[in-house]
Amino acid sequence: MCFLFVILIVIVIEVMVFLMILLHPEIIITMDHDARVLKNYWIGIENGEITYIGREKPAGGEEVIELPNRIIIPGLIDSHTHVAMTLLRGLKDDADLMDWLQNYILPMEMRLKPDDVYYGALYGIGELISSGVTTFMDMYYHEIEIAKAVVDSGVRAVLSWGSADVFFQRSPEEEFKIAKRFEQDLNALKRNKGAEDRLFYAYGPHSPYGCTRELLELFKDKSNETGTRIHIHLAETESEFKDIREKTGKTPIEYLDSIGFLSDKVMAAHVVWVAEKEFSILRERGVHVLHNPISNLKLASGIAPIPKMLENGINVALATDGPASNNRLDMFREMHVAAIIHKGFTRDPKTVPAKTVLEMATIRAAKALGLDKYIGSIEVGKKADLVVLNLRNGTQGTPLHDPYSMIVYSLDKSFVESVMINGEWVYFNGEYTKIDIEETRERVQNIRERLMREAGIT
Amino acid sequence: MCFLFVILIVIVIEVMVFLMILLHPEIIITMDHDARVLKNYWIGIENGEITYIGREKPAGGEEVIELPNRIIIPGLIDSHTHVAMTLLRGLKDDADLMDWLQNYILPMEMRLKPDDVYYGALYGIGELISSGVTTFMDMYYHEIEIAKAVVDSGVRAVLSWGSADVFFQRSPEEEFKIAKRFEQDLNALKRNKGAEDRLFYAYGPHSPYGCTRELLELFKDKSNETGTRIHIHLAETESEFKDIREKTGKTPIEYLDSIGFLSDKVMAAHVVWVAEKEFSILRERGVHVLHNPISNLKLASGIAPIPKMLENGINVALATDGPASNNRLDMFREMHVAAIIHKGFTRDPKTVPAKTVLEMATIRAAKALGLDKYIGSIEVGKKADLVVLNLRNGTQGTPLHDPYSMIVYSLDKSFVESVMINGEWVYFNGEYTKIDIEETRERVQNIRERLMREAGIT
Repeated sequence: MCFLFVILIVIVIEVMVFLMILLHPEIIITMDHDARVLKNYWIGIENGEITYIGREKPAGGEEVIELPNRIIIPGLIDSHTHVAMTLLRGLKDDADLMDWLQNYILPMEMRLKPDDVYYGALYGIGELISSGVTTFMDMYYHEIEIAKAVVDSGVRAVLSWGSADVFFQRSPEEEFKIAKRFEQDLNALKRNKGAEDRLFYAYGPHSPYGCTRELLELFKDKSNETGTRIHIHLAETESEFKDIREKTGKTPIEYLDSIGFLSDKVMAAHVVWVAEKEFSILRERGVHVLHNPISNLKLASGIAPIPKMLENGINVALATDGPASNNRLDMFREMHVAAIIHKGFTRDPKTVPAKTVLEMATIRAAKALGLDKYIGSIEVGKKADLVVLNLRNGTQGTPLHDPYSMIVYSLDKSFVESVMINGEWVYFNGEYTKIDIEETRERVQNIRERLMREAGIT
Repeated sequence: MCFLFVILIVIVIEVMVFLMILLHPEIIITMDHDARVLKNYWIGIENGEITYIGREKPAGGEEVIELPNRIIIPGLIDSHTHVAMTLLRGLKDDADLMDWLQNYILPMEMRLKPDDVYYGALYGIGELISSGVTTFMDMYYHEIEIAKAVVDSGVRAVLSWGSADVFFQRSPEEEFKIAKRFEQDLNALKRNKGAEDRLFYAYGPHSPYGCTRELLELFKDKSNETGTRIHIHLAETESEFKDIREKTGKTPIEYLDSIGFLSDKVMAAHVVWVAEKEFSILRERGVHVLHNPISNLKLASGIAPIPKMLENGINVALATDGPASNNRLDMFREMHVAAIIHKGFTRDPKTVPAKTVLEMATIRAAKALGLDKYIGSIEVGKKADLVVLNLRNGTQGTPLHDPYSMIVYSLDKSFVESVMINGEWVYFNGEYTKIDIEETRERVQNIRERLMREAGIT
């Protein structure tokens, strides 16, 4: 009996080790160092990793999938969002920021229970996956619920607790302790669920205006000590820019720099309000910028000077922001807007070209999140996070001239046919394999109705 | 025998007359004068027209369709495009305008045969229909081929021959004669095919720089005489603005006004370069502006001052422009960009709200095209041009707070389930009823390859 059991385990392990998935798409956009675009190559996947890329079909391959008319791209990375805010999507659009925030968003958020956040996140992750996102970075509270949704859905994520001692009127130490507790809970969950390669932690001091200087310094010191990355909102609105200048005599970027906060561990979302002299600060400190063009336009924050950042060699990643301010979790729509807005605004049709935009959604984002050893490109040894685009899913996939241009200007999320994360199909031929999306939708509906009722919003 | 035949005809006519289609969606967005949003109302359709809107189910109804979780909106109107340019989609993006035009677009266009234009247009119309467009306005050449594709596809269109004596080095009279010949051919086709209520004609003097003053005056005089509307590109780029000013001492708008060209028959595409004093000219003349935000951004033309036009009471319609400069024929994407870009640019989150954007894609566009008696809203007596949106087609349809906001910020074309034009389903449950889209795609592929070969583009 025991002997049979051992044999069984050996067989299972052998199958796991040797079970090779082989994909044979028409085009592979690798986003590797040489920006190789490969026609009619094979990709081999074993144990969640890419183990083969080549012209010849390798021996083995238990799951062999021919993919004519398909482009495979690296999984997209949404580098800044608040994924559970699907619950609040479209709650009050076309409104002043403060009216929206204080009279609609906050009264609903105050009433969120852990379960609400779990289902809001699961729904949002479903939305991300179906638009080709395989990794996202989040900042919210009840964040352990989001971690559970990450575990259950098969996605990869960097999670941060939104720390804001100013907003919550807590001491910096208390606020830091809460973040620390989340980190411990996350570590326990990772171990228990064997999700060490899908769950990552970052500090999440909300913003220069949501945190005291003491709290910012606490996170900075701990980051220097442990190497933990820091996820922050920075220079998003003009009012932030003015308020910080009034309070400190410095711009938000100068202020953070003056307290030694900025480093290559800092992942700064938005960065719309940048003075000319600040590009060199961002470059020299190695700060990563997370660009949210749709949210910045819709909330009338402004237009981040991305062309100048790129010229200055600053690493820029792309992001959706939360679905309450977007209103989608859709990196295809984000790529499109990122590609057109800076052309129109600078009046240079060659700025922020399609290939750069796809980099901002893949390899540059991986670099921003400190995960470029594992994800962000299709290379042997990297995690198998892959998106299969079927050019026949709509008229827009024809004719094909340049694949980068096709992806950024012509396609949309409806061309995402299948999504693999860590070697596992989490979305296959347009169907979720791990999320019951209809049940989740039902729950989201009910939660939203309860919150509206409780908050007295009609 | 003859008697039976007569009876048969009578029966057929009776069935045609009395065949009532009844639709029962969850929500109807009427876009009528009172901007009514109707919950659980019935729409009745007979003989291509809307004959009933009410809370009670009327008697009769041979085709009764319950549509829970569906929103019905008026058919969208794409007020300015070059629909056959699907053939050239993505040919050379991220390039300077003149490089793109002279080294890529024109060498391909020179080689277009009538059949090429037919299939390019049919493919583009398929793309329009699947994104909820029921009427479009076009300017191109071989335009009669586009008219044939309109007849075959069931769509509605206003067609204009692109007249440009400067570009083609012809006399104004010759150029006008060509436009006139197209008008006659179009009239013959309409009669032969019984498509009088789906095909409309407009003059198409290309632009102030593509036409001599003589040709512009010819069109203006004929328009005054016959009431025929005029479709023109106007004030699209800075170089046009500068060139016209150099040539005439006036801005493009002032120049056209000075020769008496501007009137409420004029439908002007782009209108990006507008001096402050020109808003009153546009308003007083009653010029209709056709706004193409994606094309203007992508080609780095600039950002049209739509908020100021709206404040000035100028009628603004929305449009995609041709798929070579967009690169889609997708009014959902256009609505989204129109809604966010002006907020970001003016830094007013309340400007160009979702409802106004949907008006620009429906009733305001119908007014621009002079067809608001027939289309642009859901009202008894109007043509039955309807789009059924299924909120369950993706995660983005939940939760529903405001239906205008939902349509403009959250949905995309994948929510278009069915499209009715003139009372006929041209797209039903995601399937084309009149276009063989796969065969058309094949032809588009082959035409594109032949053109590339002939033009020597690799």
